[in-house]
Amino acid sequence: MGLPKQCEIRLENRYEKGERNLITDVPGVKVGQTTIKDDSKDIHTGVTVIFPHSGNLFREKVAAGATVINGFGKSTGILQLEELGNIETPIVMTNTFAVGTALNALTKYMLKQNEDIGASTCTVNCMITECNDGELNDIRGMHVTEDDVYKAIDSASSDFDEGDVGGGTGMICMGKKGGIGSASRLVEFDGRKYTIGAIVMSNFGELGNLRIDGRRLDVCKENRDCCDKGSIIMVIGTDLPLSDRQLRRMSKRASVSLGRVGSYLGTGSGDISIAFSNGNIIPHYSDTKILKSAYLFENKMDTVFEATAETVEEAIISSLYHADTVTGIRGKVAKSLKEYL
Amino acid sequence: MGLPKQCEIRLENRYEKGERNLITDVPGVKVGQTTIKDDSKDIHTGVTVIFPHSGNLFREKVAAGATVINGFGKSTGILQLEELGNIETPIVMTNTFAVGTALNALTKYMLKQNEDIGASTCTVNCMITECNDGELNDIRGMHVTEDDVYKAIDSASSDFDEGDVGGGTGMICMGKKGGIGSASRLVEFDGRKYTIGAIVMSNFGELGNLRIDGRRLDVCKENRDCCDKGSIIMVIGTDLPLSDRQLRRMSKRASVSLGRVGSYLGTGSGDISIAFSNGNIIPHYSDTKILKSAYLFENKMDTVFEATAETVEEAIISSLYHADTVTGIRGKVAKSLKEYL
Amino acid sequence: MGLPKQCEIRLENRYEKGERNLITDVPGVKVGQTTIKDDSKDIHTGVTVIFPHSGNLFREKVAAGATVINGFGKSTGILQLEELGNIETPIVMTNTFAVGTALNALTKYMLKQNEDIGASTCTVNCMITECNDGELNDIRGMHVTEDDVYKAIDSASSDFDEGDVGGGTGMICMGKKGGIGSASRLVEFDGRKYTIGAIVMSNFGELGNLRIDGRRLDVCKENRDCCDKGSIIMVIGTDLPLSDRQLRRMSKRASVSLGRVGSYLGTGSGDISIAFSNGNIIPHYSDTKILKSAYLFENKMDTVFEATAETVEEAIISSLYHADTVTGIRGKVAKSLKEYL
Amino acid sequence: MGLPKQCEIRLENRYEKGERNLITDVPGVKVGQTTIKDDSKDIHTGVTVIFPHSGNLFREKVAAGATVINGFGKSTGILQLEELGNIETPIVMTNTFAVGTALNALTKYMLKQNEDIGASTCTVNCMITECNDGELNDIRGMHVTEDDVYKAIDSASSDFDEGDVGGGTGMICMGKKGGIGSASRLVEFDGRKYTIGAIVMSNFGELGNLRIDGRRLDVCKENRDCCDKGSIIMVIGTDLPLSDRQLRRMSKRASVSLGRVGSYLGTGSGDISIAFSNGNIIPHYSDTKILKSAYLFENKMDTVFEATAETVEEAIISSLYHADTVTGIRGKVAKSLKEYL
Repeated sequence: MGLPKQCEIRLENRYEKGERNLITDVPGVKVGQTTIKDDSKDIHTGVTVIFPHSGNLFREKVAAGATVINGFGKSTGILQLEELGNIETPIVMTNTFAVGTALNALTKYMLKQNEDIGASTCTVNCMITECNDGELNDIRGMHVTEDDVYKAIDSASSDFDEGDVGGGTGMICMGKKGGIGSASRLVEFDGRKYTIGAIVMSNFGELGNLRIDGRRLDVCKENRDCCDKGSIIMVIGTDLPLSDRQLRRMSKRASVSLGRVGSYLGTGSGDISIAFSNGNIIPHYSDTKILKSAYLFENKMDTVFEATAETVEEAIISSLYHADTVTGIRGKVAKSLKEYL
Repeated sequence: MGLPKQCEIRLENRYEKGERNLITDVPGVKVGQTTIKDDSKDIHTGVTVIFPHSGNLFREKVAAGATVINGFGKSTGILQLEELGNIETPIVMTNTFAVGTALNALTKYMLKQNEDIGASTCTVNCMITECNDGELNDIRGMHVTEDDVYKAIDSASSDFDEGDVGGGTGMICMGKKGGIGSASRLVEFDGRKYTIGAIVMSNFGELGNLRIDGRRLDVCKENRDCCDKGSIIMVIGTDLPLSDRQLRRMSKRASVSLGRVGSYLGTGSGDISIAFSNGNIIPHYSDTKILKSAYLFENKMDTVFEATAETVEEAIISSLYHADTVTGIRGKVAKSLKEYL
Repeated sequence: MGLPKQCEIRLENRYEKGERNLITDVPGVKVGQTTIKDDSKDIHTGVTVIFPHSGNLFREKVAAGATVINGFGKSTGILQLEELGNIETPIVMTNTFAVGTALNALTKYMLKQNEDIGASTCTVNCMITECNDGELNDIRGMHVTEDDVYKAIDSASSDFDEGDVGGGTGMICMGKKGGIGSASRLVEFDGRKYTIGAIVMSNFGELGNLRIDGRRLDVCKENRDCCDKGSIIMVIGTDLPLSDRQLRRMSKRASVSLGRVGSYLGTGSGDISIAFSNGNIIPHYSDTKILKSAYLFENKMDTVFEATAETVEEAIISSLYHADTVTGIRGKVAKSLKEYL
Repeated sequence: MGLPKQCEIRLENRYEKGERNLITDVPGVKVGQTTIKDDSKDIHTGVTVIFPHSGNLFREKVAAGATVINGFGKSTGILQLEELGNIETPIVMTNTFAVGTALNALTKYMLKQNEDIGASTCTVNCMITECNDGELNDIRGMHVTEDDVYKAIDSASSDFDEGDVGGGTGMICMGKKGGIGSASRLVEFDGRKYTIGAIVMSNFGELGNLRIDGRRLDVCKENRDCCDKGSIIMVIGTDLPLSDRQLRRMSKRASVSLGRVGSYLGTGSGDISIAFSNGNIIPHYSDTKILKSAYLFENKMDTVFEATAETVEEAIISSLYHADTVTGIRGKVAKSLKEYL
């Protein structure tokens, strides 16, 4: 939960943090995870699932927007999100070659919960996101099972671990051990406080490029690799009522956070940012055809943008800080950032 | 106003037409035009201006969406429309090399009406659209003046002419004389009727490709030109409350209409479609920061899409039907479609 | 193969057809299919696989572009295609809830063929496309297996069936039985002939809206459904050297074809078009860092666009013509178009 | 030219700089400027013109890509650039309300140079970019004339000034005096050196947010304004052969630079990035229809991306460093960054 004093001081934050400093500070948001580890088989992978709210997501969709910051990625669900401006399932984070299995599992979960899907109503758009953990994990072995996804779903809660857990178990970020990180901030409009939270699965960047609060770390002045490998998935949630267009704009500000921690958006990096608001619900069925929704006066988006950039930046640093050193496939060692602080 | 009996019979319409069968059937919408003609100087050009509503557009913006169906075009204002989902000025249609002059004129008009623009508040995003009328008009002479734009603005009304008038004066469509065309349809939701209207400036397509209600016209089986020259600007307006995303989707259906009349979206054609709703107003100033808006239940968009495709298709045919034969620069003759019916 | 005389006469084609009038007229392109039918279990589904060329697609990628005409769709691989402008696997067509299984199967197929993927080099971007066949097929049963995908891959050939086969087995189009359709056209540049081919999986549109060569069919003047259900996947292939940007433009012209056969791009329709050129190969490995490629002089794209619109239009009609009447789940009958001709 | 020792040390650069450390280090690129100042009339504005090469740009177009990082902007020419992947005129930078006049001037300049435009061939797509200098300049007075544009064109050279000059005369960046800045870097492929250069017109950001090499400046810890006003135009040029898609990717990396200097991409900021390569020429006329071009092996784009992010970051800091303190309209003072170093 949050960064150690040492890091916090360095981050010049402008916005108040939420109680847990996690995306689950947004009311209704829950996160579940399955960590899959077996050193003898070079297995270091897993599943993280984010629930945008705690009700029936298919019947009560959340408004959403996304930005494909760099499209070297295999996530599913983005096309329909962009067309319809909503999310109607939990969001899964896992490894690249587990997308098919996670998609099968999430589809079955949604079918079980909703007898109308694929029968009396349309199909369902599952959100599966991924990074390549092949540097530490035997990704070719395709070790994630549908049961692993169900376990993550069943464990969803307001509390969850960061670092080398869940979908982040085998991820490497900036040449250090990456993984799952989260943070939150509070903003206020019309006298009411709202929460902006972020959760990331970090797997991008080059050794030697890491910047914390803008400075390259001395500890990282090692010989760097040749290129920016990997990817990052950034999911941003809020209870602030925003339109899908405003959420798309919000999601785009994650590119600012990437620049600040040292990324240059590498050619082989699937950098994808997804933002949703559970303060703006879209019904699947409705008798009334003209519906009402709420949105933020556009001039006030600056507050949202600045808080978002700050939250995502801290979530990335947090994913690094909480991860322990891992030795993976082909003897590859990804050291913990904590060894240098 | 509308097509002659002869054509109407051939168009198998599904939706009821508005009273005038013009975009001005949408309450509040007005259109003004200046026709600039001087045969002795090969001048065949003009200006058409569409007002999305009759109040202060900068203070009360209309929700909007656009689709660049083919981007060989020089229109201004589309970038900001896409980012912010609104229109805050009248929309001008003119020739390609008159965009600068029209932009100057519209900027001055907006500055005069709003003392805050560029002083105590931000700048203004002027919508200027264009097609190349250089086959009939001495476009290199840049004959449109700022006064021509003001005259079009001042003449705005619920009634306006179609054919070889205003911005459409020098346009050629499908090898025949094109220009300004308009149509409207009624749709009903929650027991209330709404209007969908379209106005086009048609300047695209190849001789011999014209299809009316799907059939290539026998009269057009002449030797055709080598390529699809020109462009089309399609502006769609409605009083139905739609979100900016829904309006973007609506604007995209204009590509269906283009396909039906015989276009294949030629490489050198700036095919741009803009949709707005004056049933969804966005204030420039607001004390309240969380605002309300209305939108259509998404499943009902099919009605909107079908009516839009039909309206734009008829507006294009109407631009051809109402245009008279014109002899232009370099002796080029663009014959009226009426000569063949 | 191709349409019957009766239809051919009605289609006013401008371009010469390829030998088979199938996408496999493009040299190197192959298509394989698995049809999965079991009336006793309401199973009417399948798999179609398109190979852009006959070599190692991961090592020798094809230039590609895509257009999401309407994004109510769950296809995978489009994001990376848009970023990198290439395709590196075969393209699968199947039902919506079979995407996960097809993705697993295609991933395993690619891993087996390429030991470097996920080990010494990056991951692989699998192209899986889908339509919802739930009106005829027990889609909730998720009956497609990985073996079904391998069987389709193994059967790839220059000859293949159209109609209610492969991925199109359970599809409905314009209220009639849809499915797989294909066509091809020849174009000529610098004295050499090139082929443009299309294959579609048709599942869109409303009963009563079907237009063949622009006319609504009398036979279809029945009471129509309430909305445009379903989707269409359109894959366009060529050996003409085109850049990825030119291929994206080419893919967009499929919207013209949709308009012509009677679609208005329904809200719930995943209308996706993908174009590739095996005349423009992108190597996965290269010692030389500055590479050469060929492209078409842009002014000549009109020929490509017109031929593409014509090819896709015929492929759609062909999918209808070749399909037989099918009785599916819940007693739903989708009649063959042939019953009306 | 370039930053003082003091700043250079702080910027941890990875790439060798070009000879002048300006965009004009790219062979063939020239820049011309007109500075328009009259304190008695509150006039602080101007024009900057960038020539992508020194020949006939309409006949020999340069490959190009662009990214609208945030679309609160009124630039012209972006739509066609995105469709066709090229630039065919010089690129103008000026104030928001001078776009119409600059467009008229550039159109006339192009018409004079090319008698075929608008007569025997199509029209021309002029690139006019803008920021709002209304905080220092009487922007409502529309003081830029067509002659000012011609003067800038006529003065084009390999040497040019940075800071409060040309289009940057009245711009404010991060609460300090902004304006024109430039930088360049060298990259090497296949044994040959290529140059990447950038020129910016900086007008964005909030007082107190400025970061140089990642640290907020102590000097800037003043009370900050309420929002991120203004915009930034970033033009990136190179002689490295890149495809239009690769140039679009390159242009996107400017968002990384913005994040690093302290921007969060404010809602009212038109943040637009344009990249061109004069190593990849597209002819307007061609007898041969299948043409050849060169591009960079995609895996090597990481070098391009990192060098671009570094170049644009330095160009922004350079625009601040070279600007002098200016007192503008309504008594507004924009202090030079130099007062704090």
